[in-house]
Amino acid sequence: MRDGWIAIAGLGPGSDAMVTPQVRDAMRQATDVIGYIPYVARVAPREGLTLHPSDNRVEIDRAVHALTLAAAGRRVVVVSSGDPGVFAMAAAVFEALESGPPAWRDLRIDVLPGITAMLAASARAGAPLGHDFCAINLSDNLKPWGLIERRVRLAVEADFAIAFYNPRSKARAEGFAAILRLLRGICGDERPMLFARAVSTSDEHLQVVPLSQATPEMADMRTMVIVGSSATRIIERAAGPILYTPRSAA
Amino acid sequence: MRDGWIAIAGLGPGSDAMVTPQVRDAMRQATDVIGYIPYVARVAPREGLTLHPSDNRVEIDRAVHALTLAAAGRRVVVVSSGDPGVFAMAAAVFEALESGPPAWRDLRIDVLPGITAMLAASARAGAPLGHDFCAINLSDNLKPWGLIERRVRLAVEADFAIAFYNPRSKARAEGFAAILRLLRGICGDERPMLFARAVSTSDEHLQVVPLSQATPEMADMRTMVIVGSSATRIIERAAGPILYTPRSAA
Repeated sequence: MRDGWIAIAGLGPGSDAMVTPQVRDAMRQATDVIGYIPYVARVAPREGLTLHPSDNRVEIDRAVHALTLAAAGRRVVVVSSGDPGVFAMAAAVFEALESGPPAWRDLRIDVLPGITAMLAASARAGAPLGHDFCAINLSDNLKPWGLIERRVRLAVEADFAIAFYNPRSKARAEGFAAILRLLRGICGDERPMLFARAVSTSDEHLQVVPLSQATPEMADMRTMVIVGSSATRIIERAAGPILYTPRSAA
Repeated sequence: MRDGWIAIAGLGPGSDAMVTPQVRDAMRQATDVIGYIPYVARVAPREGLTLHPSDNRVEIDRAVHALTLAAAGRRVVVVSSGDPGVFAMAAAVFEALESGPPAWRDLRIDVLPGITAMLAASARAGAPLGHDFCAINLSDNLKPWGLIERRVRLAVEADFAIAFYNPRSKARAEGFAAILRLLRGICGDERPMLFARAVSTSDEHLQVVPLSQATPEMADMRTMVIVGSSATRIIERAAGPILYTPRSAA
């Protein structure tokens, strides 16, 4: 058991150019890689490395699997896209750790940060998160919908720029439409929004639109949505608009 | 002019193991590096590369300098620690761009994301930002103090975990003490807090304490402060506590 460890590693938004050397190094030392199918698919197979891809929504099973392997002496990398600490596997591993055998607490567990989706999207569009901001997961799998709406209202009242993770999936088609209606009621029609799909991959697609022109169909599972604060501005250019929030409050 | 460009690059929290390959590559192509003295000091000098270190609080001068050099055909990297889009140089460059000569808008400008301080700190402590969260800059150089207090109150009401950037400096010794008093009044005494100083450097120092034991002196310019939400938990271990926020709302 003493040689086993877990590294919970962030692969960034998609491009290998945004994977940190620290994460690469953990991959080289690993005996096992555990994670959601499309993230494990980003890891190059090699002799001595066992890949354990698993389906979505089995985060706790995956976490228990990782802890069990590490306790048996394996060197386990749990992969998330983006940053593992932001709506990803790190919290799931610690939930499993807290409710698991006490001996698991002697394991070495490292969290290796990555470029989270909101920062990758923000960078591609300019700097919409350049002043105070918040991050809200729009999935209601793990929290009541009423809490999500309440947080969005308070975030607008605080005049944060808002990054929405998991804005919309096939199983949750209606929620994001309700959020757009809520935002129109409290932000007005002209608030700038960013829809950034699959940033840094060959499927990348960016749209900057005023709230009045935003539609639910602009978002899917691979889209990061950012709503500007009242101070967020657009610079028009031939090469495409830049979206940014100045450092000073309005 | 057509060959000049600007890359606004994030160096991460301190360790070279957290600098992305994309940022390394921009450094290799650069003719000029511009930034705050301690960040430029992290760039290895080489033939053909001019380093332009400058003092704090001259962000707009620095941005104008970068745009001017790029417009003259230079390949300019503007460095920030952490992520350039989070309380850093990207917004300053776009402010300068918006108010500068129209020809600047034809320049190629890329923002290259980095590991921002709150995610590096979060990773070292566990996963305190594993559920909805916000980031607030406690410096009142560019916004009124009343707005900061108002945002903190609304963030607590929304039950976000809160990451405080720039919690305290010599010039602003009192503000953070006021924030701690405000938090005690609305969060109770037991809310867990993280003080993470100089993460990933040889000066790294982490403290996890309940709000009742937090003192202003635990923070300085190099400290990231994270306040848990009502759901944030501590797992006690021989190797030190893990601070994390479960994926489910309380």
